[in-house]
Amino acid sequence: MPPLTIIGSPPSAATQRVLVVARLLKLEYTLHRINYRSKEHKSEDFLATKNPFGLIPVLQDGDFTLYESRAICKYLIAKYQGDSSVQLLPSDVEGVAQVDQYMSVETCQFEPICDAFARETLLKKIRLGQSPDPEKVKQYRQDFTNLLTTYEHILNGKRYLCGEFMTLADVCHLPMGQYMSILEQRTCYYQRIGQMLRVGGDLSGKRKLGKKCGFLRRQRYDVL
Amino acid sequence: MPPLTIIGSPPSAATQRVLVVARLLKLEYTLHRINYRSKEHKSEDFLATKNPFGLIPVLQDGDFTLYESRAICKYLIAKYQGDSSVQLLPSDVEGVAQVDQYMSVETCQFEPICDAFARETLLKKIRLGQSPDPEKVKQYRQDFTNLLTTYEHILNGKRYLCGEFMTLADVCHLPMGQYMSILEQRTCYYQRIGQMLRVGGDLSGKRKLGKKCGFLRRQRYDVL
Repeated sequence: MPPLTIIGSPPSAATQRVLVVARLLKLEYTLHRINYRSKEHKSEDFLATKNPFGLIPVLQDGDFTLYESRAICKYLIAKYQGDSSVQLLPSDVEGVAQVDQYMSVETCQFEPICDAFARETLLKKIRLGQSPDPEKVKQYRQDFTNLLTTYEHILNGKRYLCGEFMTLADVCHLPMGQYMSILEQRTCYYQRIGQMLRVGGDLSGKRKLGKKCGFLRRQRYDVL
Repeated sequence: MPPLTIIGSPPSAATQRVLVVARLLKLEYTLHRINYRSKEHKSEDFLATKNPFGLIPVLQDGDFTLYESRAICKYLIAKYQGDSSVQLLPSDVEGVAQVDQYMSVETCQFEPICDAFARETLLKKIRLGQSPDPEKVKQYRQDFTNLLTTYEHILNGKRYLCGEFMTLADVCHLPMGQYMSILEQRTCYYQRIGQMLRVGGDLSGKRKLGKKCGFLRRQRYDVL
């Protein structure tokens, strides 16, 4: 196997997305933790050779370099899923299309709401020393609740988003879903998200897959 | 070929993304124009059988239903590209990964900036009767200019985002790119976007592919 290097920061949701997939596929990799303090990700070398947008994560697979977390996940699966017992992408055209559909929902609807909520309730205080705006928090919480209601409708009678097996679509929801569960743990969001995506149990140390990804929850708590 | 139905609204950028791909692949399809006035896309039937999020476009291919425009594009290519002379997705793992990478950049960076700009300069007036906030317009314009600078860096020495051939990554940029070109035509954005993505000429009626997609520009102008 060629040497894989994942350049990122474990607290970042996008990096976690790639790390979870790498762990599920049992891939050997080197994690290069980006140095935020020295602004390594905005350095001339990083922009020229890793990602011109100055964002993480970045994957290096031999001479091949790739950025954007969801694209990296799909690449790792396309190239290495064959060696793994975990099948995160189906082999039929319709099955792949459904995974793409729910990944797009995660990208365009789920993450933006989670991100806005996290910025208002957590990052605003940490980065700017400002208090959350109660009206915005109320609105984002309502938006998220409405979204979960639709997810519950989708998951009615199914174990995972695409049916009986966990796919990349479920995994992609995990990092921001866990942020929301931690930020909102007092209001039972954890249980609701876990039940909603059917991945909380599988990926949080409670079931079979948990041991592979338990590192994720610990790092979350370290950050928060 | 099974009967394809595209449910959407031609002025919507997401619908246009699917229509362009369908035209490039020379697919026969029925376009069902959604009735916004009767809120057809929020009706009980639409939410239950088409898209639970109440959004367009939706594809129906026989009994198979799919939503989210970029997922629909990939599905159409995976299923029907074989019959077409246009190759919008490469066949190698690294090539597909690069298309995914630039599609993700389009989704997460390009569209949000274009969308924010269009909302402030156009939709705010149409929908709310309010004037644009000059400070916001200035900020969005600067954000977009910065983004274009990075795209120009990426395209240095290449004809398209992924090399010498137009892929789905380029096509996905077209609808919002054209909105920007129309909104900002007095400031030479059209030329800059066209040059940037190398698709303006190819898809606007000036070159070989233009005739297939010229309908798009006309519909744009009808809307605006």
